[in-house]
Amino acid sequence: MSGLTLTPLAGVPMIAEGDDLAGIALDAIPASGVTLRNGDVLVFAQKVVSKSEGRLVRLDSVTPSAKAVELGRTTEKDPRIIELVLSESSEVLRAIPGVIIVQHRLGLVLANAGIDRSNIGGEEHALLLPLDPDASARRIRDDIQRRAGVDAGIMVIDSIGRAWRNGTVGTLIGSSGVETLLDLRGKPDLFGRHLETTEVGWGDELASAASLVMGQASEGWPIVHVAGSSLLRRDAQSEALLRPKNKDLFR
Amino acid sequence: MSGLTLTPLAGVPMIAEGDDLAGIALDAIPASGVTLRNGDVLVFAQKVVSKSEGRLVRLDSVTPSAKAVELGRTTEKDPRIIELVLSESSEVLRAIPGVIIVQHRLGLVLANAGIDRSNIGGEEHALLLPLDPDASARRIRDDIQRRAGVDAGIMVIDSIGRAWRNGTVGTLIGSSGVETLLDLRGKPDLFGRHLETTEVGWGDELASAASLVMGQASEGWPIVHVAGSSLLRRDAQSEALLRPKNKDLFR
Repeated sequence: MSGLTLTPLAGVPMIAEGDDLAGIALDAIPASGVTLRNGDVLVFAQKVVSKSEGRLVRLDSVTPSAKAVELGRTTEKDPRIIELVLSESSEVLRAIPGVIIVQHRLGLVLANAGIDRSNIGGEEHALLLPLDPDASARRIRDDIQRRAGVDAGIMVIDSIGRAWRNGTVGTLIGSSGVETLLDLRGKPDLFGRHLETTEVGWGDELASAASLVMGQASEGWPIVHVAGSSLLRRDAQSEALLRPKNKDLFR
Repeated sequence: MSGLTLTPLAGVPMIAEGDDLAGIALDAIPASGVTLRNGDVLVFAQKVVSKSEGRLVRLDSVTPSAKAVELGRTTEKDPRIIELVLSESSEVLRAIPGVIIVQHRLGLVLANAGIDRSNIGGEEHALLLPLDPDASARRIRDDIQRRAGVDAGIMVIDSIGRAWRNGTVGTLIGSSGVETLLDLRGKPDLFGRHLETTEVGWGDELASAASLVMGQASEGWPIVHVAGSSLLRRDAQSEALLRPKNKDLFR
């Protein structure tokens, strides 16, 4: 085990629709004092992936349904935001003043369907999650492979809250070419006992690690380079981290 | 933002009751090619802290109560383990075949009260969480400060499951001298909007990062050195990461 080094890429510009994230990352890598090697991982904040894919919605273009108006009253939130939350979700799990927790169409359980508000040039916008974050990751991976000849794992992460604990943590929402869920069932532990139930949320652990160096609030290092041992594994799916509803005791 | 480097310490021996964890870490640091500086963090796996504090219980010394026998039947688990789980917990949240989720006396919500089984010299044992992991962290921090003249943050972490997602992730259970919950409420975001609700589970993110390099199953690097910027903050409490029951929508 050789350890892990996480480096936020310097000089990443503000991202707009149509921007080429693979090219932006490849340009920023040398300036950040790192080299991209096969098996390294590049972690992208959901915000930059969503923006590059045009997932910004002008709030004045949104007409809330009757259900959204009603839920807006319950949650004390803008009914136009609630309309977008509903359109992005398969189920509302909790709605109380200040909080709406849904199951997102991607399977994630999270507040506000992961929607962020932003103000751009005086206009109110909402930024939705990428349509298919696994596909986003695969595209960026293919672009980098084609242009730089390097097979790097790609992760798309967001800051998501948890049951039982305060604070959001970096969480994997899409990936290509990285481990996601490590299955240790049947492997011996330090005492030679067989591990009965251990699965490790490896992709989420790496998402949290990357989140630590992305900075917060008005700072912003939305792309992080990760180097270390054995990070790459081609066949894993981010979906492996989603607990099916029928196996979840807490919804 | 200068990035983060995580290095598992080499040559840490199997830990037994009474072992001096600060001394063991200080011995292992030079052999691992790192230097311990003010503001660095040392992350300890719960298992080594518990063992050094004598938290191993011989299962043949445990007499299950009637309630433990009944819950053992429900969960299809050894009633002696259930007896220990109950003695370590303030509340049972869920009990079904194969699973018992409790609120631990420390406030953590987790399976089996964090108890691991182990077989040492043919005898079945259970390993409980430290009595007071914050106090454990403080002791190790003081020992290191006294002997090496360095003020390092100390974290004690365990691998804990989550609602909604598969896989365990490294989670903070005790700390001294490190950030735990980063409060960004009122700070401007990238667009100049005030962040309304953002608190970041910084201590848990760092716990997950360290867990990535601790190795799994029969491997074992139970102490990890972390270097990076601005990691140290003296006044934070691991308790800040515990969501109070009356603010938790999912128990």
